[in-house]
Amino acid sequence: MSIAANNPALSSWVEVPENSDFPIQNIPFGIVKAEGHSPRVASRIGDSIIDLKSLFVLGYLENLQFRLEDFDTDSLNAMMRSGKQGTRSLRNRISKLFEAGQEDLQKNEHHVNQVLIPVGQVEMLMPVKVGDYTDFYSSEQHAYNVGCMFRDPNNALLPNWKHIPVGYHGRASSIVISGTPMHRPKGQQKPNDEEPPVFGPCKLLDFELEMGFVTYQGKPLGDSISTEEADDYIFGMCLFNDWSARDIQKWEYVPLGPFLAKNFASHVSPWIVTLDALEPFRVPGPVQDPKVLPYLEYTGDKHIDINLEVAIQPENSEEKVVCHSNYKHMYWNMNQQLAHHSVNGCNINAGDMMASGTISGGEEGMYGSMLEISWKGTKPVPMPDGSERKFILDNDTVIMRGYGEKNGVRVGFGEVSAKVLPAK
Amino acid sequence: MSIAANNPALSSWVEVPENSDFPIQNIPFGIVKAEGHSPRVASRIGDSIIDLKSLFVLGYLENLQFRLEDFDTDSLNAMMRSGKQGTRSLRNRISKLFEAGQEDLQKNEHHVNQVLIPVGQVEMLMPVKVGDYTDFYSSEQHAYNVGCMFRDPNNALLPNWKHIPVGYHGRASSIVISGTPMHRPKGQQKPNDEEPPVFGPCKLLDFELEMGFVTYQGKPLGDSISTEEADDYIFGMCLFNDWSARDIQKWEYVPLGPFLAKNFASHVSPWIVTLDALEPFRVPGPVQDPKVLPYLEYTGDKHIDINLEVAIQPENSEEKVVCHSNYKHMYWNMNQQLAHHSVNGCNINAGDMMASGTISGGEEGMYGSMLEISWKGTKPVPMPDGSERKFILDNDTVIMRGYGEKNGVRVGFGEVSAKVLPAK
Repeated sequence: MSIAANNPALSSWVEVPENSDFPIQNIPFGIVKAEGHSPRVASRIGDSIIDLKSLFVLGYLENLQFRLEDFDTDSLNAMMRSGKQGTRSLRNRISKLFEAGQEDLQKNEHHVNQVLIPVGQVEMLMPVKVGDYTDFYSSEQHAYNVGCMFRDPNNALLPNWKHIPVGYHGRASSIVISGTPMHRPKGQQKPNDEEPPVFGPCKLLDFELEMGFVTYQGKPLGDSISTEEADDYIFGMCLFNDWSARDIQKWEYVPLGPFLAKNFASHVSPWIVTLDALEPFRVPGPVQDPKVLPYLEYTGDKHIDINLEVAIQPENSEEKVVCHSNYKHMYWNMNQQLAHHSVNGCNINAGDMMASGTISGGEEGMYGSMLEISWKGTKPVPMPDGSERKFILDNDTVIMRGYGEKNGVRVGFGEVSAKVLPAK
Repeated sequence: MSIAANNPALSSWVEVPENSDFPIQNIPFGIVKAEGHSPRVASRIGDSIIDLKSLFVLGYLENLQFRLEDFDTDSLNAMMRSGKQGTRSLRNRISKLFEAGQEDLQKNEHHVNQVLIPVGQVEMLMPVKVGDYTDFYSSEQHAYNVGCMFRDPNNALLPNWKHIPVGYHGRASSIVISGTPMHRPKGQQKPNDEEPPVFGPCKLLDFELEMGFVTYQGKPLGDSISTEEADDYIFGMCLFNDWSARDIQKWEYVPLGPFLAKNFASHVSPWIVTLDALEPFRVPGPVQDPKVLPYLEYTGDKHIDINLEVAIQPENSEEKVVCHSNYKHMYWNMNQQLAHHSVNGCNINAGDMMASGTISGGEEGMYGSMLEISWKGTKPVPMPDGSERKFILDNDTVIMRGYGEKNGVRVGFGEVSAKVLPAK
C-alpha cells in the first residue's frame, strides 16, 4: 500500500519540534474544545491543533465526502462513517494542505489564524463515543507471567490460549480521556481464605499497558470479517490504560471473568493515530505454533513496531519509567482479533474500541503491569523519592507513552496520563 | 408508593381483549414504525398502539417536560432523560387520557384516528439504544444446577456466589428485537480432549430465560447508587433471551468468561414495562444467608412476581411449553445488582441494559435453559411432532412470555420470539 501522506521526505510549513510525535506523517484525529467554542474534530502537526470544522467552513475540504456536522461535533463517530476510503482521503488532503511549499492555505494569514490553535489553548475530549468495548489477552509473555504466578510455570498458558485470541467484554461507559482524575475503587475482597469477604478501598491497584483500536462500521449481524478484510474495518489506535483492582479481581472473576475489578475506569490517549499512519512500522509477527485454525490464518506483516513505556510519578517527585515494551510483542494481531470476534456473526459498529491486553516483552523491564513488575508484590520497585512501589498508591500519576520510528520519521501517540485520588 | 395509573378499578375506553397483557394499568413504552411514517415512541392499550408523537403534536402532552424530538425518534433514550418523575408523569397522563369516561381525546374522532393504530399495522423496533449491557447470574437454582452438572452437588455454588451478585459485561451491539431471524453461530469447539479444537456450527445451541431492565441516566463516574436509590434509576423491564452456544462456551470461557458463546445475538421483547407498572406485583425475596455486606442490604419488597414460560415451536408444528418459571425466584434483586455494579464508581447511562441471568425455579419443569431441562442432553424433551430436543435445532422458534397478575389485573410483556436459521 502506498499512501502519499506517509512519504518520509515530506515536511510541513507548520513548525514541528524535534522528537515530536506529530510530524506531518502522523495527522491523527481527535476532539478539541477551545474556550468559547463548541467541541470539534481536529488534527495536529507539531504543537499546532488543526481545527477541521474551520478548515471545512473555509472550503479547504471540498470534494471530499464530508458534511459540516461530521466535524462540528463532539466525537469522531460521524466522520468515521465515511469508512477507510473517506478518512484516508481526508488525511491525504490535510497532509497536502500543510506540506512545505503548498501555499493555498499558508498564504492566507487570516485563514491560518482561524485554523491553527496552539496545543496549550485547547482541552482534549474523549475522541470517540465507544459503543462496545472488548479487551483481549493477546501478549504471550503477559499470559505466561500470570500463569506462572497463579498456576504453574510448566502449565502457565491455559489450553485454549494458543488456539483462541482470548477476549472478553468490558465496560464502555467508564472509558475516559487522559488526564481525567480517578478515585481508587472500593469493592469486595477476600484477603483471608478462612474469613468472610470484606468491603473497602482496593489495596492492589494496578495499571495494564495496552493499546486500543477503534473500528469503522462493520457488517450486518450474522456476517464475519476475515483477517484479510480486517484492515478495512480498523480506523486507528490509541494508548490504553486498563486499570485493574487485583484484590477485587481475585475474589470475583471465577467463573464469569473480570467485572468490578476493571470497570471503574480505563484511560485512553486523546489522538487516534490512523492505521494508515502506522503502515510504515509494520513488522512480521511470531511464528504461531500450534498452527491456528484457517479463519485465524493471515498473510503479510500485521504486527506493528511501536515503542511503549510506562512511568510512575509520585506526588511532588520526578517520574520513574518502570516498563519499556513494544506493541510488536503481541502473539495475536488485530486482524486475528477482529476475525475471531466476528466469526460467530457478532457485529461491530463505528466507534467500538478493542484493546490488546497487557503488552509485556520477553524480559524483566518489559512487563506491562505492576503485578508482573513487582512479581505479585515480592519485588518492590524503588522510586526517585526513596519510596517503593508494589502497586499504585494514592496520588501517584501513571503515564504511558508510545511511538513508531523509521527512516527518521517518528509517529507517536503522545501520552495517556492519570492521577489516582484516594477512595471517596 | 401510590401511582394513579396502577388503580385496579381503572378501565379504558379503548377495547382490551380478555387476558391481554396490555390493560390501561400497563402503559408500556416502545418504538413503532407504521408504513409511510418514521419510527416513533409509542405505548399500547389492548391491541391498539398509541402514537405518542401524534399525541404530542395534537397538544395532549402539554405541561409535561417533553419536546417533540423525545417522541419523533427511533429509541426511548431521549424520553428516558427526563428521569423517573418525567416518565411517571407521562404514563399518568396517558392513563388519564384513555380512562373510561374521559372524553377529551375520545370525543375527537379525527384525533383518535391519528393517535391509535391497530397493532397489526406497525412493525416493532428495538426500544432502546443499548449503551452498555451487563448480564448477571442471580438465580440460585440455575447456579446450583450448573454447579451440579459441571462440578459437584456438594459444592455446587462457587464460594463468592452468595456474597456477590456475580455479573459480567456482554455485547450491546447484538441485542435485537423479537422476531429478528438469527443464524446458528459458528465457532471453535473442542469436542475431544485429546484432539485439537475444531471449527464449525455450534451443536449445543441453547436459550436462557432472563428478564432485562433498562436504566435511566445515572450518577457521574466515581459515585455509587445505593440499594435504596436503585428504583429511581430503573426505567422498566423486558423479556430477554440470552442465547448461548454451550460448546463454544465450554472451550473459551476459562479464564475471562463467556465471549463468542453469547455475543452472536440476544433477543428482547418490544415493550418496556415500567417499574411503576410492576409495583403491584412486588413480593419479598428469599432470606439471604450468609448475611450480605452492608452495601447489599435492602429494605422492602424488591422482588417481583412475574410468571414466565418458554415454548419451543418446531417448524410446521405446534409449540411445546418446556419451562414455567417466575422472576420472583431470583436470589439477588435489581436493587442489589445495581448497587453492586456501581459500588466501585462504575457509571451507568440512560439506555443501559442489565439482564438477570437464567431464571430457574426450584423443581423440574421450572428450569430456564435446555442445558438444565435436558440435564446436559441426558433427558431429551419429547415434542408434539414426535421429535425430541436436547438443545435447539435449526428452524425451531423459541418463544418466551411473561406477566404479573393480581386483583384481576394482568400486566404483561407480550413475548420475545426468535427463529433459528441454519448456520451461514
